[in-house]
Amino acid sequence: MKAFVIDVDGCLTDGQMWYSVEGKMFKAFGADDHDALNLIRSKIQICLMTADHLGYRISVARANDMGIHIVFTPMNERVDCMSKICCLEDIIYMGDGILDGDIFEKVGYSICPADGFYLTKQKASYVCQHSGGHRAVAEACLHIKEKFEL
Amino acid sequence: MKAFVIDVDGCLTDGQMWYSVEGKMFKAFGADDHDALNLIRSKIQICLMTADHLGYRISVARANDMGIHIVFTPMNERVDCMSKICCLEDIIYMGDGILDGDIFEKVGYSICPADGFYLTKQKASYVCQHSGGHRAVAEACLHIKEKFEL
Amino acid sequence: MKAFVIDVDGCLTDGQMWYSVEGKMFKAFGADDHDALNLIRSKIQICLMTADHLGYRISVARANDMGIHIVFTPMNERVDCMSKICCLEDIIYMGDGILDGDIFEKVGYSICPADGFYLTKQKASYVCQHSGGHRAVAEACLHIKEKFEL
Amino acid sequence: MKAFVIDVDGCLTDGQMWYSVEGKMFKAFGADDHDALNLIRSKIQICLMTADHLGYRISVARANDMGIHIVFTPMNERVDCMSKICCLEDIIYMGDGILDGDIFEKVGYSICPADGFYLTKQKASYVCQHSGGHRAVAEACLHIKEKFEL
Repeated sequence: MKAFVIDVDGCLTDGQMWYSVEGKMFKAFGADDHDALNLIRSKIQICLMTADHLGYRISVARANDMGIHIVFTPMNERVDCMSKICCLEDIIYMGDGILDGDIFEKVGYSICPADGFYLTKQKASYVCQHSGGHRAVAEACLHIKEKFEL
Repeated sequence: MKAFVIDVDGCLTDGQMWYSVEGKMFKAFGADDHDALNLIRSKIQICLMTADHLGYRISVARANDMGIHIVFTPMNERVDCMSKICCLEDIIYMGDGILDGDIFEKVGYSICPADGFYLTKQKASYVCQHSGGHRAVAEACLHIKEKFEL
Repeated sequence: MKAFVIDVDGCLTDGQMWYSVEGKMFKAFGADDHDALNLIRSKIQICLMTADHLGYRISVARANDMGIHIVFTPMNERVDCMSKICCLEDIIYMGDGILDGDIFEKVGYSICPADGFYLTKQKASYVCQHSGGHRAVAEACLHIKEKFEL
Repeated sequence: MKAFVIDVDGCLTDGQMWYSVEGKMFKAFGADDHDALNLIRSKIQICLMTADHLGYRISVARANDMGIHIVFTPMNERVDCMSKICCLEDIIYMGDGILDGDIFEKVGYSICPADGFYLTKQKASYVCQHSGGHRAVAEACLHIKEKFEL
């Protein structure tokens, strides 16, 4: 496997977005994910993808703190976008939403957090014991490290 | 079915409202709900209703980001308000609170999130596997799409 | 029963307090609780108590929005404070924390949210199906209304 | 036992960190933990440790409100840092993350919240019924008080 692509909202967060009267203000990220990504980043390319245009700069703030690349990619362009990273067969994709099941079918390996959409979970190669924003990505990293002997 | 009416607090959010010393400041919305509403909005009229006067402008900020109509409607005026949209028999109503069970009895079809009030859940036509603010509305949209062949 | 006394943090909230670098900033309250308190407030005196000095003004903001009386009362003065409202036998006390079990033994009736401290739950007259900040107080109100025929 | 060392993120909080476009802004702490730490602090030295550099000042704000000592300690320096407090055999360490399991093996007694990383939980001397930021530390304090007869 050559790349680990992670959907931000619902994997690195629990999917929630805090709104004030001025609009989208906050997202909540979990701590262990950063530590776990550091364990595998020298062995596999890591890329964050988000389809959330209005919350993009919030996600960028977190990605920058972790020193990990992030790209804005609408769901319907995601497979195309990933195919430019490397062969889709060499991609591990982690997603949680109603539209991620279709993407799972096109990549080499797929991972879904414990609290992902119930129909999406059924299509994943691996379903985490932990939920998005609550160690799902950390668990995915350790799983990848062991399964693909990174 | 002609309209899908969704109670904001507890369906599109987990019902929580963040207070500072200055009062109600934030609500947390989930991401998948927007994607799922987009899948059915050309086929059925969608309307958000909220009885939360003090948090109204926060809910409007989210509704505007999704491009979906929202109206302030106290619980005791909700059935009247819905009857102006179309015949109550043609309305799918999604609610979660202690006062929503009575409304369920007056509409064509009713949906309750997994974490709705336990007595209210017993009266719903369909109970979601997912909780409010955590994909309940997304699941409801896909359920509606399949059940009513939209 | 003459009074319903509710511990704020952990009953009306999930107990969490959001900190910034400047200290305690936010607490999260649930919506249904207000509606349910309105159903019984003409029949029984309702009083909020909090031992949280630093977050007191946040709790006051919420209490004011609900139009319900709140008093700052350290845990070790709580029983004394309640005895000034009415005879302790006529008080329903709702609490969730490690120190609330002792108070439960001194009042007429006690209620604990589903996510209350596990040893405290064992001492409560009634344990809610719902958690603090997630309809526990709403459920308690409906339970009181039925059990004591308010 | 002479010292109780607690990892901040994931034990005193649920591990989540709220980001705005300006970066890390908030963490959520639970209330009962403070009350419970007060019950044992005269009998055992209490120390908070955090490896979160960017959120350090948020954690300090909470530690100051509780009047408890906090130190910034990267995970790979944690055992060394603890060995300066007292003999490692006399330390109770509470942690939740993917890197805490290794630390558990080097101290006298280890505690993990209910929602700690699943492999870390397997290595703990005691696993809490309550989750981080939701009374895990409170439960740990009462457990320590009873088990070590403080």
